Amino acid sequence: MISEKKFLLRLEKERNTINKKLKHVLAKRTPRSLYEPSDYIIADKGKRLRPLLLLFSTEAVGGAVKSSYNAALAVEMLHNFTLIHDDIMDNADKRRNKLTVHVKYDVNTAILAGDGLLAVAYEYLLKNLTIPGNKIVEYFTNGLLEVCEGQSLDKEFELLNSVSLKDYIVMITKKTAAMMEMCCAVGAHLGGGSFEEIRALGAYGKNLGIAFQIQDDLLDITGDEKDFGKKIGGDLIEGKKTFLFLSALQLAKGNDKKLLHTMIQNKGIQPSQVQTYKQLYGKLGVLDSARKEIIRYTKKALQQVRKIQSQNAQEIFTFLAYSLIQRTT
Amino acid sequence: MISEKKFLLRLEKERNTINKKLKHVLAKRTPRSLYEPSDYIIADKGKRLRPLLLLFSTEAVGGAVKSSYNAALAVEMLHNFTLIHDDIMDNADKRRNKLTVHVKYDVNTAILAGDGLLAVAYEYLLKNLTIPGNKIVEYFTNGLLEVCEGQSLDKEFELLNSVSLKDYIVMITKKTAAMMEMCCAVGAHLGGGSFEEIRALGAYGKNLGIAFQIQDDLLDITGDEKDFGKKIGGDLIEGKKTFLFLSALQLAKGNDKKLLHTMIQNKGIQPSQVQTYKQLYGKLGVLDSARKEIIRYTKKALQQVRKIQSQNAQEIFTFLAYSLIQRTT
Repeated sequence: MISEKKFLLRLEKERNTINKKLKHVLAKRTPRSLYEPSDYIIADKGKRLRPLLLLFSTEAVGGAVKSSYNAALAVEMLHNFTLIHDDIMDNADKRRNKLTVHVKYDVNTAILAGDGLLAVAYEYLLKNLTIPGNKIVEYFTNGLLEVCEGQSLDKEFELLNSVSLKDYIVMITKKTAAMMEMCCAVGAHLGGGSFEEIRALGAYGKNLGIAFQIQDDLLDITGDEKDFGKKIGGDLIEGKKTFLFLSALQLAKGNDKKLLHTMIQNKGIQPSQVQTYKQLYGKLGVLDSARKEIIRYTKKALQQVRKIQSQNAQEIFTFLAYSLIQRTT
Repeated sequence: MISEKKFLLRLEKERNTINKKLKHVLAKRTPRSLYEPSDYIIADKGKRLRPLLLLFSTEAVGGAVKSSYNAALAVEMLHNFTLIHDDIMDNADKRRNKLTVHVKYDVNTAILAGDGLLAVAYEYLLKNLTIPGNKIVEYFTNGLLEVCEGQSLDKEFELLNSVSLKDYIVMITKKTAAMMEMCCAVGAHLGGGSFEEIRALGAYGKNLGIAFQIQDDLLDITGDEKDFGKKIGGDLIEGKKTFLFLSALQLAKGNDKKLLHTMIQNKGIQPSQVQTYKQLYGKLGVLDSARKEIIRYTKKALQQVRKIQSQNAQEIFTFLAYSLIQRTT
C-alpha cells in the first residue's frame, strides 16, 4: 500500500514536471500580443487536475507517463482556453486571486488568446506521437464540444425561471465532467489500455467531475475568499442556478421561496445579501445534501476504478478522489 | 482542354454539394443556443473557396473527391469560426449583406458559437477517415495557429504608427494565405499526393491567398457596396493599414501625407471622408500597383501548379485563379 505521504510527493513531482513543461510551451512564440495573455493565466499554478488524471490513466493501464506529457499539456491548455472564454461570458473579474485575462487585457485580446491557446493545445496533443492519433483527436474534440454545449446550457439556465436538478446534472456533466472523462480516456488510450479499461477510467473521470463541480458550487458559498481566490457567493451574485440553489428551490416554502425567486427575477443578488442566502441554505439543509451528493458521485467513480487491475492505480485514484473532497480551493 | 463553361459548371456542382452537406452538419445538434448562430452564418452561401481548394487538390494528385468532403466541410467551418470571432474584434456590423453574428445575437453568444463551430470542424476533419490523421491534424492546426497569429498582428498594426509593406505581407500570409495553403496541403495529402505535390499545391494556395487578400483590400475601396456586402471604405473607417494605405503612405508627400497621417492618429476616418481618400489612392497610383501585385502573386501561384502532372488539374487551378482576379465580391 502506498502511504498518503508518498501519494502527495508523487502529486507534487508530477505537478512540478507539468509546470516546468508548461512554462516552455508559450514562452518563445510570437507575436507576444497573442501568447503573452495565455502565458499569464497558464503561469498561475492551478491544481493541474486534468493533466494529472491523464498521466495517472496512462500509468494505470501499464503505459509510461513520459509518452503522455504532451497530451497532458494539451488538456491543461484546453482547460485554460475554456477559463479565458468563460470568464468573459460570466463577467468574472478575478480567478485564483488574479485579474481574469479580459480584465487585465481586454475582451478582444482574451478572445484571440483563447483561440490561439486552443490551437497550441491541438498541436501538443499529437506532438511526437508515433501511433495513429485519430482516436485521441476524437476524444479530445468531443471533450471540447461537450464543454461548449455545457457552457451554452449554463448560460441558458441563467435566463430560465425553471430548471430541474436533473437538467443541472446534465449541464455539469457536459461542462465539467466530460473533460475529466476525456482526460482519463486519452491517457488510457495512450497507455495502450483495452476498450474496457478506457471506458472504466473514463467513467471514473466523469463521476469525479460531477462530484468536483458540486464541490465547486459548495465552496462558492462555504469557502474562504482568500483560499478560494474568487468572491464568496459569486454564483448567487451572478444569478447562477447551482446545485445548492436548485436544491433550495425544491425545498423552500413561503417567504423562503419568495427570497429565492427574487434572485431569479433580478438575475442575481447584491453582495450584501450573500449571508442571508447562506443562512437559508443552512436552514434548508442543502449544504449537507450537497456534501452527500459529492460523496455519492465519488463512490461511483471509485467503483469504476476497481475494474482496473493495477493495485497501485487504484490507490492513487482513491487518494486523488479523497483529496478533491477535502479541498478548500 | 476544359472550357470556361465546363469549369463553371463543375464549380457550381461542387458548391452545391458542399452547401447541401453543410446544411446537415449543425441542423440537428442541441443546444440550439450554441449551434443556431453558427448555422446562421454557415447557411449564408459564400464562395466556398477553401473547401473547393481542398477538393481540387485531392483530385489533382489522383485522389477521389468523395473521400475529402468531410475535410472540406471542416475547413469551411474553420473559416466561418474565424469570421465570427474576427467580426467581434473588428467591430464589424455586416458581412455578405447580413448582420454579423455578435450583432444579430450578442458578443458572448458569438464567442461560444465560434468555439463550438471550431470543435465541429475538428470532428469532421477526421470523420470516417481510414488512414492515420496525424498529418492532417498537424496541417489543420498549423493553419488555425497562423490565422490567430495573423489576426493578432493585424490588431497590433492598428496601434502602430509605422508598418512596412513587408510587415503587411507577413501579416496577410498568416491571416489569409496560410489557411488556403493548408486547404491545398490537406486535400493533396488525403488524395495520396507525394511530398513534392503537397508542397507545390500548398505553395499555390499560399500565393493565391496573398493575391486574394490584396484583392480584398482593393475591393474594399473600389467595390460596389451591394455586391461586396460590406460598407465601402470600411478598412479606412476602421483605421486598417491595408496594402493600399501602406503603399500610399510610401508615395505621398506634403498635404497628401498629412491626410494619411490623420487616419493613423485618429485610428480611422469618417465615412464622409472615404471619397477623398479614394481620390488620393487614384492620384498616387496605388490602385494600379495593387492590381499589379495581385497578378504577380497569381502568376507565382500558377508556376507552382505546373509541377503537378494532371493537365486537368492545371486547367482547373488556372481558371480558379483567374476567377478570383475577376471577382467583385
